[in-house]
Amino acid sequence: MDFTITPSSRLRPSPYFDATVAEGVTAFTTYNHMLMPTSYGHAEEEYWRLMRDVSLWDVACERQVELKGPDAAELAQILTVRDLSRLAIGQGKYAPICNHAGTLLNDPIALKLAEDRYWFSIADSNIWFWARAIAAERSLDVEVTEPDASPLAVQGPKAEPLIASLFGDWVRELKYFWFRETSLDGIPLLLARSGWSKQGGFELYLMDGMQGTKLWNLVRKAGQRWSIGPGAPNLSERIESGLLSYGGDTDAKTNPFEVRLGKYVDLGLTGEVVGIEALRQIQRAGPRRHQLGVILEGREPVAPQSSWHAISRDGRRLGDLTNCTWSYRLKRNIGFALVSTDSRAEQAVEVSLGDQVVPGTLTELPFL
Amino acid sequence: MDFTITPSSRLRPSPYFDATVAEGVTAFTTYNHMLMPTSYGHAEEEYWRLMRDVSLWDVACERQVELKGPDAAELAQILTVRDLSRLAIGQGKYAPICNHAGTLLNDPIALKLAEDRYWFSIADSNIWFWARAIAAERSLDVEVTEPDASPLAVQGPKAEPLIASLFGDWVRELKYFWFRETSLDGIPLLLARSGWSKQGGFELYLMDGMQGTKLWNLVRKAGQRWSIGPGAPNLSERIESGLLSYGGDTDAKTNPFEVRLGKYVDLGLTGEVVGIEALRQIQRAGPRRHQLGVILEGREPVAPQSSWHAISRDGRRLGDLTNCTWSYRLKRNIGFALVSTDSRAEQAVEVSLGDQVVPGTLTELPFL
Repeated sequence: MDFTITPSSRLRPSPYFDATVAEGVTAFTTYNHMLMPTSYGHAEEEYWRLMRDVSLWDVACERQVELKGPDAAELAQILTVRDLSRLAIGQGKYAPICNHAGTLLNDPIALKLAEDRYWFSIADSNIWFWARAIAAERSLDVEVTEPDASPLAVQGPKAEPLIASLFGDWVRELKYFWFRETSLDGIPLLLARSGWSKQGGFELYLMDGMQGTKLWNLVRKAGQRWSIGPGAPNLSERIESGLLSYGGDTDAKTNPFEVRLGKYVDLGLTGEVVGIEALRQIQRAGPRRHQLGVILEGREPVAPQSSWHAISRDGRRLGDLTNCTWSYRLKRNIGFALVSTDSRAEQAVEVSLGDQVVPGTLTELPFL
Repeated sequence: MDFTITPSSRLRPSPYFDATVAEGVTAFTTYNHMLMPTSYGHAEEEYWRLMRDVSLWDVACERQVELKGPDAAELAQILTVRDLSRLAIGQGKYAPICNHAGTLLNDPIALKLAEDRYWFSIADSNIWFWARAIAAERSLDVEVTEPDASPLAVQGPKAEPLIASLFGDWVRELKYFWFRETSLDGIPLLLARSGWSKQGGFELYLMDGMQGTKLWNLVRKAGQRWSIGPGAPNLSERIESGLLSYGGDTDAKTNPFEVRLGKYVDLGLTGEVVGIEALRQIQRAGPRRHQLGVILEGREPVAPQSSWHAISRDGRRLGDLTNCTWSYRLKRNIGFALVSTDSRAEQAVEVSLGDQVVPGTLTELPFL
């Protein structure tokens, strides 16, 4: 069933919108009150482009929450359960944000631009409201705003030679999640080694929203010799790679331990950090759910899903399948299971997909 | 340009989704991380159905933020700049929520279900995060959750006889924004006189998400003698009627005075109320923008807009056109202007619509 999207000023257009339309974008999702391209109508071709060549993604919906002022560093640390004390200027870290009960609110990248200036490059939930509430209630001297910054992702094994051809060989030395402010043909941007795939690549944070088409076209043209083409965060690749989707694979009570983010929780942090006390208690008691993979039987690709699906074993409900997609490499339908911690890899399960009950097997993540 | 929406578990299906598909829904928007129907493919017919008969709307995306516990009443008042001290059980009030700077965060209806239980029936922004942050930082004894409650709107001049035929004549006495918990053929629901149009009507808050299709079909069948049909919050009617869209007609710095909500701000409230001190200062200094209508010249209906458009007078930028639609009654394109307070009704202005500059005239709101 195909439905169109009614234009609304509640949904902000991306600086790359015109360029993606010119490329033939066919489908979108919404993310942080913006439209994000999801398909150019050639799903398998877009998958292999990401795996073998280089793919260009409008991910301007990865919006930035800027903290600026004397208490910016203090607020940044209060907001995330990851220790930021050794974060250097020019470095980013995957930095989960939790509420006071230890429930995951977002899983952004924290970027340190200056001693008094941080960005959270966020997943799909409103962290401006959250950060402003905490800052104001604690009387911190910090402004929480949104800068003019719109990531364009360049992903795939050929992203590095392409980006080096545009910016110079220094980009080859850039470590994962590190970034540098630079420019391209007069376009101001922040260049980071990052992106929501496991195929490697960069994100160009355009810092002038009027120059989206120009930036897109510059990268597109330079990328021709590496067979660049349009793409989007790829459901098949991200599930094969075990990448979490906040809000897709999490619900209103998910804590970081349940979704393989325990290694990003620094339980020794001060109790000033929102959620850290609750997470210490959850860790002591032991989380009740964990995240595994599921490989479903059958060779017929499933359609994209809009709901979670019940997972059972011998008639007992274990939890939910939180996503499901056809894997082009495994040639099976695969997905993530958020299930009780007494379930284990290799166990046989049944998944209720619509009217069908499909057999499957639990497995460790990532798949590949 | 028509684009499809990729299914995602980040976008929760409505309990009425299957029913709206069966009715032939053709377009959606997203709202509070849900899909909301916007069209069944017959725009003018849907408009006149609302004006003359009765229209059935899936507005489950008007999600509920429940406050429950000993401090629920205290938190409700801390969150809204409207005085709730005389709100009765069974009564609702339009209750703007602001941040500490007096900026509008949402414009929900506050409903009092019990002395220790309130709902905010919210517009399109995340108030669960906001309410939980304030409650936790102030150590209030209250739980902030989402109940199983999904509004179905029945709007138009024939809504009252239809709803009376289903629930009894007591609904005719129900005052605006008041509600009662009741049931229909065993389906638990809360019946309120409310809805996002000025044509009158009711909202049925379904309180069992498994019974959406059943409720839709019961109302649909009973409504046949009043020529009921499917519809959605109607852009043309809501703009003619001067109804605000939070996030569409507001930006990241809009305060209630700028968008005709001053009468819902009780400046005498205690400083514990978030934003009230800032609003007292804004009121003293005088707001810088206000909201007027614009009637554009020309008789050719505009397409729906995804951006704001600059409004100027004699070459000076006054502000923005925040929405624009064809009015079926005025037979003109009309919209809301968020403009500097030195601009006045009856003044001639120029609006930059894409490549065109369209002449128009400022006017008071509502249009009709």
